[in-house]
Amino acid sequence: MNHGGGGPNRGFHTASPEEILAGPYLAFASLETALLGVLCQASGVATRAARCKVAAEGRPVYSFAARRVHPAIVPMVERAAYLAGCDGVSTVKAAEALGLQPVGTMPHSLVLMLGEERAWRGMDRVLDPKVPRVALIDTFQDEKLAAVAAARILGDRLAAVRLDTPSSRRGDLPAILREVRWELDLRGFVDVRLFVSGGLDERAIQALNPFADAYGVGSAIGSAPAIDFALDVVEVDGQPRAKRGKLSGRKLLWLCPECGNRGISPWGRRAAHCPRCGHRVRSLLETWISKGKVKAPPTIRGLRERTVRQVQDAPDPFPKET
Amino acid sequence: MNHGGGGPNRGFHTASPEEILAGPYLAFASLETALLGVLCQASGVATRAARCKVAAEGRPVYSFAARRVHPAIVPMVERAAYLAGCDGVSTVKAAEALGLQPVGTMPHSLVLMLGEERAWRGMDRVLDPKVPRVALIDTFQDEKLAAVAAARILGDRLAAVRLDTPSSRRGDLPAILREVRWELDLRGFVDVRLFVSGGLDERAIQALNPFADAYGVGSAIGSAPAIDFALDVVEVDGQPRAKRGKLSGRKLLWLCPECGNRGISPWGRRAAHCPRCGHRVRSLLETWISKGKVKAPPTIRGLRERTVRQVQDAPDPFPKET
Amino acid sequence: MNHGGGGPNRGFHTASPEEILAGPYLAFASLETALLGVLCQASGVATRAARCKVAAEGRPVYSFAARRVHPAIVPMVERAAYLAGCDGVSTVKAAEALGLQPVGTMPHSLVLMLGEERAWRGMDRVLDPKVPRVALIDTFQDEKLAAVAAARILGDRLAAVRLDTPSSRRGDLPAILREVRWELDLRGFVDVRLFVSGGLDERAIQALNPFADAYGVGSAIGSAPAIDFALDVVEVDGQPRAKRGKLSGRKLLWLCPECGNRGISPWGRRAAHCPRCGHRVRSLLETWISKGKVKAPPTIRGLRERTVRQVQDAPDPFPKET
Amino acid sequence: MNHGGGGPNRGFHTASPEEILAGPYLAFASLETALLGVLCQASGVATRAARCKVAAEGRPVYSFAARRVHPAIVPMVERAAYLAGCDGVSTVKAAEALGLQPVGTMPHSLVLMLGEERAWRGMDRVLDPKVPRVALIDTFQDEKLAAVAAARILGDRLAAVRLDTPSSRRGDLPAILREVRWELDLRGFVDVRLFVSGGLDERAIQALNPFADAYGVGSAIGSAPAIDFALDVVEVDGQPRAKRGKLSGRKLLWLCPECGNRGISPWGRRAAHCPRCGHRVRSLLETWISKGKVKAPPTIRGLRERTVRQVQDAPDPFPKET
Amino acid sequence: MNHGGGGPNRGFHTASPEEILAGPYLAFASLETALLGVLCQASGVATRAARCKVAAEGRPVYSFAARRVHPAIVPMVERAAYLAGCDGVSTVKAAEALGLQPVGTMPHSLVLMLGEERAWRGMDRVLDPKVPRVALIDTFQDEKLAAVAAARILGDRLAAVRLDTPSSRRGDLPAILREVRWELDLRGFVDVRLFVSGGLDERAIQALNPFADAYGVGSAIGSAPAIDFALDVVEVDGQPRAKRGKLSGRKLLWLCPECGNRGISPWGRRAAHCPRCGHRVRSLLETWISKGKVKAPPTIRGLRERTVRQVQDAPDPFPKET
Amino acid sequence: MNHGGGGPNRGFHTASPEEILAGPYLAFASLETALLGVLCQASGVATRAARCKVAAEGRPVYSFAARRVHPAIVPMVERAAYLAGCDGVSTVKAAEALGLQPVGTMPHSLVLMLGEERAWRGMDRVLDPKVPRVALIDTFQDEKLAAVAAARILGDRLAAVRLDTPSSRRGDLPAILREVRWELDLRGFVDVRLFVSGGLDERAIQALNPFADAYGVGSAIGSAPAIDFALDVVEVDGQPRAKRGKLSGRKLLWLCPECGNRGISPWGRRAAHCPRCGHRVRSLLETWISKGKVKAPPTIRGLRERTVRQVQDAPDPFPKET
Repeated sequence: MNHGGGGPNRGFHTASPEEILAGPYLAFASLETALLGVLCQASGVATRAARCKVAAEGRPVYSFAARRVHPAIVPMVERAAYLAGCDGVSTVKAAEALGLQPVGTMPHSLVLMLGEERAWRGMDRVLDPKVPRVALIDTFQDEKLAAVAAARILGDRLAAVRLDTPSSRRGDLPAILREVRWELDLRGFVDVRLFVSGGLDERAIQALNPFADAYGVGSAIGSAPAIDFALDVVEVDGQPRAKRGKLSGRKLLWLCPECGNRGISPWGRRAAHCPRCGHRVRSLLETWISKGKVKAPPTIRGLRERTVRQVQDAPDPFPKET
Repeated sequence: MNHGGGGPNRGFHTASPEEILAGPYLAFASLETALLGVLCQASGVATRAARCKVAAEGRPVYSFAARRVHPAIVPMVERAAYLAGCDGVSTVKAAEALGLQPVGTMPHSLVLMLGEERAWRGMDRVLDPKVPRVALIDTFQDEKLAAVAAARILGDRLAAVRLDTPSSRRGDLPAILREVRWELDLRGFVDVRLFVSGGLDERAIQALNPFADAYGVGSAIGSAPAIDFALDVVEVDGQPRAKRGKLSGRKLLWLCPECGNRGISPWGRRAAHCPRCGHRVRSLLETWISKGKVKAPPTIRGLRERTVRQVQDAPDPFPKET
Repeated sequence: MNHGGGGPNRGFHTASPEEILAGPYLAFASLETALLGVLCQASGVATRAARCKVAAEGRPVYSFAARRVHPAIVPMVERAAYLAGCDGVSTVKAAEALGLQPVGTMPHSLVLMLGEERAWRGMDRVLDPKVPRVALIDTFQDEKLAAVAAARILGDRLAAVRLDTPSSRRGDLPAILREVRWELDLRGFVDVRLFVSGGLDERAIQALNPFADAYGVGSAIGSAPAIDFALDVVEVDGQPRAKRGKLSGRKLLWLCPECGNRGISPWGRRAAHCPRCGHRVRSLLETWISKGKVKAPPTIRGLRERTVRQVQDAPDPFPKET
Repeated sequence: MNHGGGGPNRGFHTASPEEILAGPYLAFASLETALLGVLCQASGVATRAARCKVAAEGRPVYSFAARRVHPAIVPMVERAAYLAGCDGVSTVKAAEALGLQPVGTMPHSLVLMLGEERAWRGMDRVLDPKVPRVALIDTFQDEKLAAVAAARILGDRLAAVRLDTPSSRRGDLPAILREVRWELDLRGFVDVRLFVSGGLDERAIQALNPFADAYGVGSAIGSAPAIDFALDVVEVDGQPRAKRGKLSGRKLLWLCPECGNRGISPWGRRAAHCPRCGHRVRSLLETWISKGKVKAPPTIRGLRERTVRQVQDAPDPFPKET
Repeated sequence: MNHGGGGPNRGFHTASPEEILAGPYLAFASLETALLGVLCQASGVATRAARCKVAAEGRPVYSFAARRVHPAIVPMVERAAYLAGCDGVSTVKAAEALGLQPVGTMPHSLVLMLGEERAWRGMDRVLDPKVPRVALIDTFQDEKLAAVAAARILGDRLAAVRLDTPSSRRGDLPAILREVRWELDLRGFVDVRLFVSGGLDERAIQALNPFADAYGVGSAIGSAPAIDFALDVVEVDGQPRAKRGKLSGRKLLWLCPECGNRGISPWGRRAAHCPRCGHRVRSLLETWISKGKVKAPPTIRGLRERTVRQVQDAPDPFPKET
Repeated sequence: MNHGGGGPNRGFHTASPEEILAGPYLAFASLETALLGVLCQASGVATRAARCKVAAEGRPVYSFAARRVHPAIVPMVERAAYLAGCDGVSTVKAAEALGLQPVGTMPHSLVLMLGEERAWRGMDRVLDPKVPRVALIDTFQDEKLAAVAAARILGDRLAAVRLDTPSSRRGDLPAILREVRWELDLRGFVDVRLFVSGGLDERAIQALNPFADAYGVGSAIGSAPAIDFALDVVEVDGQPRAKRGKLSGRKLLWLCPECGNRGISPWGRRAAHCPRCGHRVRSLLETWISKGKVKAPPTIRGLRERTVRQVQDAPDPFPKET
């Protein structure tokens, strides 16, 4: 399967093999569409999640994508977001599968039914003492007064306030955050964190970093456009053959451990040295299924560590002129 | 559930109720995320599909979205595309559920393994005589010669040629189509249709209409951004109450059958007359579940007819200055 | 004095004489700078005020410019704004000079010192019963709740609520207004008007018209750029003479009462007929000072009526493509 | 009084206190509008004047704003321009108040009445020998010939030529200046300076610097938009309280003498050290009125020196990409 | 020879045959490059000239292109310009070949050597009385004074003044023309025409039309980009054959005399009726060389009339939104 | 003759003398137009050719301009292109005059008449063994397969393949080149070069450099806009005199051999030292004709070397931000 490029190539290398299937075509022909579907959508979600995480410059980012995608794929979406670097997910099912505690705050409906103060106090009363208290403060009041009110009511037990400010009130969200921060600090609530959600994407996160402490990201992750992988025949009976627009022949994907250069070369001619620095390169391809035996898959933790490291090593996705 | 608007409002009316849930909150609280997920993603897909269908100005549009989304939601995606006006879908499973024959053509892999001529002849030999023959012509050759070759080989049995031209060769796709049309016509193959696929969206379709006869649309439909519905509490114990940014109170959604005007009004005050033309309006809300009884759902055919009619009645999504 | 044009000609005709001084040059040479200063700044203010009034499509517009200009020219600024069509001014001094009652609402400082409810009630208690009650609702609370609260407290005596929403909360001010309107109406307060102020200019006013009932405009009027009039010698001893870039000779300024055409022609050759429609034209020039005698100046009311009529007859300052 | 920011913050720090009034509110409530008017307009004028002076990179800049503003505020406008760095002002009244000689050249009207040569010779004959002769050269002739003619007539006594070139002839004003410079130099008049005026602003000045020696700036200074200061209550009875969009509480404004960092902090917690470099900061606030006693105001000279120094220390207002 | 289209199709129809060569390939192969060169450059020149003429809305346009192209092709360039609608050409050689009188005015060098007045008087003295006197007025003086001076000197004998204003003085050339027109009219010289030259193209001409009476166009015509014709083999031994990107087979080019529609159709199938209006079409192709006999070529006059008529019938090259 | 500048100054210095004619005006007056024509068009062609050559970063660039210009100037155009750095020209006549072998490949017509394989083999059979074989591969087939086919047929004798890909197939020409390169290399044809032609200009060349080995440039060179030189009188009887917009007086053009600075100074005052670095400058002017004697002209080779060196020393014509 090659990534065909086209459009902004977001983190993938054009024409490089991501997956190689070798064997009788009819053995996997009927799986082509399903294989692509799994790979394209999950890669799209993961790419967007990784970008948000990079944009947050170390601050936690939680996937709130569940409400934007069909329930059947929520576990897939949250898994992809988590593997790409998100710090938590919001559904019980997905969290369980990933070995995590789900993440969330009180909903607006609670505040609407009980009123702000009763909702805050109620949450404080019923939650396990180990769970950090996060007060939702944008329901009725302006965030300025609500943040101070919540802090006064919950005192030291308040870990954070959550601003899910409606778009019609987002004239200058960084300014609102600055104001909340100032008013909390002025009254001694310097440890209360600011948790922001609502229509966030990479650019919004970058603008909020000076004042925000954590982010919940929904639509941007859930509706991330799929990556356009293609499953191309590139070799028939050992002979290179490919349709127009594709490079023919089985390929090697190599990485130079010295300079980070990455490239492809024909399978037969194992690339020995990096064309840029001359250092010996190493193959990035691993065999996962061979003669019917499937290699043991990596753990969730292992996968995530590898992905996060790759993202860190990739070029800066937000160059200055953007 | 209200649609929150914001951004380009693609076919939905801001702040109008799409679904009203009335009852004890805890009876449906745990379903909120799932309900939204079902509604948001399917509505996004359907909206994009409807736009493509409108852009095609009557030409058939088929959903080729299956390879861009996780297999678990392929039936949902293809159903939404079909209900919104697409003329067919490409997966067996989804087609069955919709009571349709799946739609597709020979794949590139067949041509790659057999060569063009053998692939075309082979398809002709094995297909049920009732199935229209569509020859894929972009694999190895330029479309100009391949179209004529396929027409010469299959003669009157060739229903259409399919151009899935790679993006690197799409300098001016309308010009390529014009050329193929000219060469076919010049040699008497005036009944061979041109079927186009590959990275199409509404704008591409509009540009190709002068020469194309049918379209297959993949990523544009499969990766359509979700519609941002919200499930908002707007009434508590009969009292209007809503968070900032939302209109409080249960609402009536009405349509003026005379002038097409559409609007909302508070539930209590049943809007009697259209504020624009004075004609008597009628409610667009229907009761689907009441006291545990679920009204029999409409048939697929009925749903599609209604949707297509609504799309036809909606304002032109492609005003001239765009 | 000619208007030199250049840049967007905002309501003035390039090269047309606005004022003609004839006599020994030394009799008025020392007044040149002062004459220009009076004319340029007041004309700039009046032009902007007229544009705001046109944009408001009949809704009242009040000049709140006093806090943006030096106190010494507040009467001049407010006079110019009023003559150009504004419905009222905010300072006692200027209002007196114009024969008006000054216009204003309670200040934020009152709300800050007393709290919202006490401020609203206090205003209601001390104001002359004939003065309409306008409650300032943006100080502490979100406008949504504050508007309903003010209406509940003051009941039928509340004439309007004023939104001076800070820019950091102006994500979508028309949406906020729509929400306030909906919540007031839903609870029966259909007669409470919405008065908007804060950083408004012509474009903002046009966007708010669907929901706003009146406007207060400050900086846009007070900081209006001066109109670039020039005091040019165009005739010396009866001979036309002018510097480069100016048309020489004393000029007649005429208007065609039939088709609205307007133009200039050399003084000697009294333009008899309109070059466009052939109708007899009439001169727009009037003699105000002659041989030391000054004609009685028109009343404020007369001046304003004439200006407003001229603005109405002028071409639409907001053509569609803007 | 805080500067509210918003829009391009031209030289002022958002939310920093420029003036603190403490005492019974009614003692200064009636002065709010006047105080703001004085501060807002003068600050706008000074900011624009400072920008022009910075743009001129050391070349003299004179305020010619008098003809664009109402005579009542000419002294205020010219004072603000002078304090911000302008090298002179054009009205007798303002110059006297500032302890300066007014600056100007012969007017176009003189040339129009006498002709160029008689005007130049006349000026030379009547002016005090100590006043530098500046010949206005754009009235009738193209600047190229007029400059040489003036230099030939006045010889060594000609200090400068003034180009007030009409906009219709400003195809490429830098090229015209270069040409005038070349023709003067070629004929030995290397000491004649080029003085430019007419519709200049910062950008025009930057483009003319390679050839111009001095500037007269009118509309850009006179019609400078006011700075949007606000007089906000931020503390009531010793308790921080502020409307939405403002930081509550009395504030300290500090400067780090080491790294130039500048910031605010709550009054109570006197900022001791710079958060950037750790150096001890110092307060920028000074007490001017206390218990009815007014501190002696600084001299004009002292004020101007301080302003000019602050402008020099401020970040470059014309970063490269602009 | 087909026009290949691509880029803005300036007056030619994509893929339509402009010239058909039939016969043994070697009989004309060596002429391919020369044939294309003749056709491409001349068509480019003619297209630009026709656009300028259309832009001038009836005012005379003269080709001043000779100084921008190699002398060897001046006759070709001026012929093409004239055939496309220009009213005259500036070189003796080209004019003779076209049966015209060459067109020109006194050069700047004459004014530079004699001075303006002597140059104007000299021209008047030596020219044949039948030649209209055109005074060049932009050499030393500003156009405003020079125009009046020339008119005073030559009186009724002055037919026009020519403004070749240098680009550095073209701040607002329409305004300069308006001023010259006003000053001439004011002094009774209402019959003196304004002739403009210098860097003009279609847009400049459109802007000057309100005041200019005639135009001289140089670089725009001389440096017009060539039209990209191609000499394509489209038929071999009676069989259609063409390279990718071209329509194969000999073609008929037809015009519908009823609705102006124009199109191509295969040679064999003589298009009988217009696909748009159903009217009988007629062929636009004419046989010029057959069996060695060359048809008598049309006269220059005949060619020009035909071209001008075609340009008039073509769609407006300057639609409103441009 | 001065270059007047204006527009993007492409390689020429504004107002610097390129040619000085001294003597009785009538001795050269009648040559003015012809002299300008020769200089303007040839300089335009040479400038564009030099830019293409610089863009190619060392790869050969051949002039294919002959088919876009009138045959009478083909030798002039190809000479200018060659002198500016092109590596060869395509017409026999021009090549002979320059002492070169003409450059070209088989035409499309050969392939159309013989078919690809017969055309390739035929070329191989009839060409002198010393001529490198270049196979045209874009006529019928997609370049991907055609390149491999040509290499298999001609084997080691194939020097290069030529891609003249039609614009309708140029979706991503660099990607097509990459694909051709990959397929050739994969099959061992690593020495076959890629020669590209068809609508190329500087930007296209820069984009293709990673994969292309040589370029043929046609329209960009042939239709290059002329450089706007002017033949200006700047001195009359030893006195400096010039029209508006020009610097008067004979000028020296100097170059600083130390820092590359270049400038002009009045003839009389021989610039001795560079104003930038203080080094002694040297004159760039040479005497070519004096008292009727013409200095022997430099050889073609000598001229080209000088031009190429000047282009190398000139500032980078493609700065990064472009």
